[in-house]
Amino acid sequence: MTLSPELTETLTAFAGRLADASAKVIMPHFRTAMPVDDKADLWGGAKGYDPVTAADRGAEAAIRALIEADYPDHGILGEEYGEKQGSSPLTWVLDPIDGTRAFITGLPLWGTLIALNDGSAPVIGVMDQPFTGERYVGSPAGTFLGGRRLSVRACPDLGQARLMTTSPHLFRAPGTRDAFERVAEKAQLVRYGGDCYAYCMIAAGQVDAVIESGLETYDVQALIPIVRQAGGLFTSWTGGDPQAGGDVVATGDARLHEQILNLLNG
Amino acid sequence: MTLSPELTETLTAFAGRLADASAKVIMPHFRTAMPVDDKADLWGGAKGYDPVTAADRGAEAAIRALIEADYPDHGILGEEYGEKQGSSPLTWVLDPIDGTRAFITGLPLWGTLIALNDGSAPVIGVMDQPFTGERYVGSPAGTFLGGRRLSVRACPDLGQARLMTTSPHLFRAPGTRDAFERVAEKAQLVRYGGDCYAYCMIAAGQVDAVIESGLETYDVQALIPIVRQAGGLFTSWTGGDPQAGGDVVATGDARLHEQILNLLNG
Repeated sequence: MTLSPELTETLTAFAGRLADASAKVIMPHFRTAMPVDDKADLWGGAKGYDPVTAADRGAEAAIRALIEADYPDHGILGEEYGEKQGSSPLTWVLDPIDGTRAFITGLPLWGTLIALNDGSAPVIGVMDQPFTGERYVGSPAGTFLGGRRLSVRACPDLGQARLMTTSPHLFRAPGTRDAFERVAEKAQLVRYGGDCYAYCMIAAGQVDAVIESGLETYDVQALIPIVRQAGGLFTSWTGGDPQAGGDVVATGDARLHEQILNLLNG
Repeated sequence: MTLSPELTETLTAFAGRLADASAKVIMPHFRTAMPVDDKADLWGGAKGYDPVTAADRGAEAAIRALIEADYPDHGILGEEYGEKQGSSPLTWVLDPIDGTRAFITGLPLWGTLIALNDGSAPVIGVMDQPFTGERYVGSPAGTFLGGRRLSVRACPDLGQARLMTTSPHLFRAPGTRDAFERVAEKAQLVRYGGDCYAYCMIAAGQVDAVIESGLETYDVQALIPIVRQAGGLFTSWTGGDPQAGGDVVATGDARLHEQILNLLNG
């Protein structure tokens, strides 16, 4: 489904309202001694420690309630409350707190991820960080932080590149850790601990590449328009469509992207 | 030298003025396409990539100028411009941007570190993060963030502990990486990418332990009063005085501290 410019603008503004509602639920919990549940207990620990809080659940519930009130025909796919099929091809893809580990350790690198998928790709993406007051919005109009349009920086060569990933422990699948290290050892700088914030720093021209593994669809959908509409690339490790999650690579410069794909797959 | 409560209060307020001056120099550079020099080039690369910017140098110069104007007898030890011996036993220990890698990648986890050492230990410490508007201040009056007094949380057992360190690449000296991993594998959560911010999260009761290696004296002096005056512990890996830097461990809970020292040294 192709959205008209008018509908895109309306739905981008609506995504901002969703982020406002989410922030109102989350912020009273941030940096408090909140109880933290371990979702991994439910799954036999296959994913290791997987923290979730009342803030994650409450924020997603608040967002879903607004969508169901204003756009009851839209689909919803959220980390905490799963999938609701819509009669429209439009689906909202939600991660109320991406980076729950950052959230519970008090670091302002978590974000609320809100994407609108038109049935073939995410076309609107919001990353909201209410503690710092930052809201990154990617849409066909471009990528914006507040009133300022963002764009990636040129970085044609990995030797000059700033590379980020959330944790070395992200690379659990066989071969993925070695593949990441082949890239990391050639980068100028490797920084851990980014979560969704790292992708926004590509859009802002501060970081050149993010490489991650084992992601879920709600971890990536909002970030795809944010990176692409700032001039960057966002694909799977084999150069394919990244919207299902899995192993993904985002870069600001197409030449760097090609070098990284070669190293990941060589 | 023992400072009177009045002089401590005066010098704590002065440290705040130093942070104000530093922030004014640094903030116009943050998230711009600033030139970045590599100090490691000067040292034959032994420390790997070691970025420094005009913001680091300008901020330290601004701080030093204020100290020299108001307290010309005080000593100064700074990362960028070295040591100035004072006739007073009081010495200011400065790292204008701790976490330059965070700074150049746009992440709000760097901080300006300002310590006052009374000749035997750091007694006042400031960590200023002007992008988020946070200023952590530790002194004999306690540790404060804005008007709020901070205190560590209880965490008697490593299995419930949130552990942070800046990067796995910090552990260069023989045996240090293995020692860190002995602790990390028993922690509930390990998070990378903290810099000075991680120590402040111990003071705020969000993080339970930080373990680092190969630090300089100006990396730690300001953080020692921030952690200790919030109720935490800050020592070397062998339980000794950490103020020279090197291998350090900070925790919120004394029982956790003992467990960690045993693992690091076992």
